Amino acid sequence: MNTPAFPLPAAARLRIVLVGTQHPGNIGAAARALKTMGLARLVLVAPEQFPADEAFRRAAGADDLLAAAGVVATLAEAVADCRYVLGCTARSRRVQLEEFEPRQAAAQAVAMAADGEVALVFGRERTGLTNEELQLCHAAVHIPANPEYSSLNLAAAVQVLAYELRLALREQSPPAAPDNRHPDEAPASHAQLEGFFAQLGQTLDEIDFHKGRTPDSAMRKLRRLFLRAQPSEQEVRLLRGVLADAQRMARLAEGRG
Amino acid sequence: MNTPAFPLPAAARLRIVLVGTQHPGNIGAAARALKTMGLARLVLVAPEQFPADEAFRRAAGADDLLAAAGVVATLAEAVADCRYVLGCTARSRRVQLEEFEPRQAAAQAVAMAADGEVALVFGRERTGLTNEELQLCHAAVHIPANPEYSSLNLAAAVQVLAYELRLALREQSPPAAPDNRHPDEAPASHAQLEGFFAQLGQTLDEIDFHKGRTPDSAMRKLRRLFLRAQPSEQEVRLLRGVLADAQRMARLAEGRG
Repeated sequence: MNTPAFPLPAAARLRIVLVGTQHPGNIGAAARALKTMGLARLVLVAPEQFPADEAFRRAAGADDLLAAAGVVATLAEAVADCRYVLGCTARSRRVQLEEFEPRQAAAQAVAMAADGEVALVFGRERTGLTNEELQLCHAAVHIPANPEYSSLNLAAAVQVLAYELRLALREQSPPAAPDNRHPDEAPASHAQLEGFFAQLGQTLDEIDFHKGRTPDSAMRKLRRLFLRAQPSEQEVRLLRGVLADAQRMARLAEGRG
Repeated sequence: MNTPAFPLPAAARLRIVLVGTQHPGNIGAAARALKTMGLARLVLVAPEQFPADEAFRRAAGADDLLAAAGVVATLAEAVADCRYVLGCTARSRRVQLEEFEPRQAAAQAVAMAADGEVALVFGRERTGLTNEELQLCHAAVHIPANPEYSSLNLAAAVQVLAYELRLALREQSPPAAPDNRHPDEAPASHAQLEGFFAQLGQTLDEIDFHKGRTPDSAMRKLRRLFLRAQPSEQEVRLLRGVLADAQRMARLAEGRG
């Protein structure tokens, strides 16, 4: 249909289908949600108003998806070539479909897209999918919501599923390691940390921090605090620079006292 | 602030903060997103237009959250009593904060909310959070998006994070970070940490640490280090005691120099 922004082939076999959407703004917002997650294929089944300025306005920079969107008359047409169809529902108990949460659904959709066309279908804002439409689906997706107020906006539901699809697509490629420190900064070695702690102990003496109390307790607490932070080499150098200046002041004060 | 719809106590200690929101419709849509995920506490920092009809219209049945939302002038006020603050960014490399994806961030936020107030902060539609605002945060959250088109709508970003928070609340997952703090020690509040940072800045001046260099870079690195350690109240008192003695020495050196 068009070129997916996501560099993995499975994404090219995933389409999002919006059935009977009432508000064109929601179509635009859904297109934006898809594009932010690297998905590109949108099919509209009998939208109430489309094309519409409001849809393009809400799509922001995702108007290319809207321009390329297919428009068909029935869900059956929209999914005719699909090997796997997932239908989003607030509650699917009406038809006894297998029901997934978004994370499972995304994993399933991406696995199926490895060798066939897959559709993720969203119903009308107020009334969702009809029973007849759900019967075209292989399984249902249910976003776990507050039982007292479960009405997600249509584009918000699309965003949640598109987000899970992106994570599932990414898992096919090696995941990025969690990055808790600046990428260029190596963690300080044990010896570097001990060098810092030795200088910290000297500094506490020189600024007369202990005032006759036993120094062990304060040093133990400070060690625990700094070890918890897992400083980088660069951070240890910075801290030792601060200590050096405090020591310089203490020596000045003493020398001239 | 108001009663959370989510039956778990940690949810009651989670607040979502929207900073400088330009479009009132996004405030309403964010409120709806929160309520669908069982979250109830919304704080608005200097919204451009609020209250506004458009906000209440887009909130649909979540107008109770809007009516109960706090409105304050600065982010510092919005998070003053928080032990942990997460800032959403498109890219956080500017401030070199620890960076989480939504799933990790939600686990961390829920773990922290077990015994303290936690805030999740979203910036302006176009420009996000300023560097000064990000420096009030302990860590950043980044929604992994299409690098060619990463601009999630504000309410869509809130929906993704609220969804992950709901899943994390449901799992009540154990804390992601090792917690070496003594069990009896309360975490330092935001205000206590800021008091420490102010004194640290003064001390660096007084011991002549900067020597003509710009002080911002060192302070930014030190903030990052100490925020990562999440000091207890007692640890902050200990650190401030050390600083006080370094300041005393500096004044002695100067007075007698």
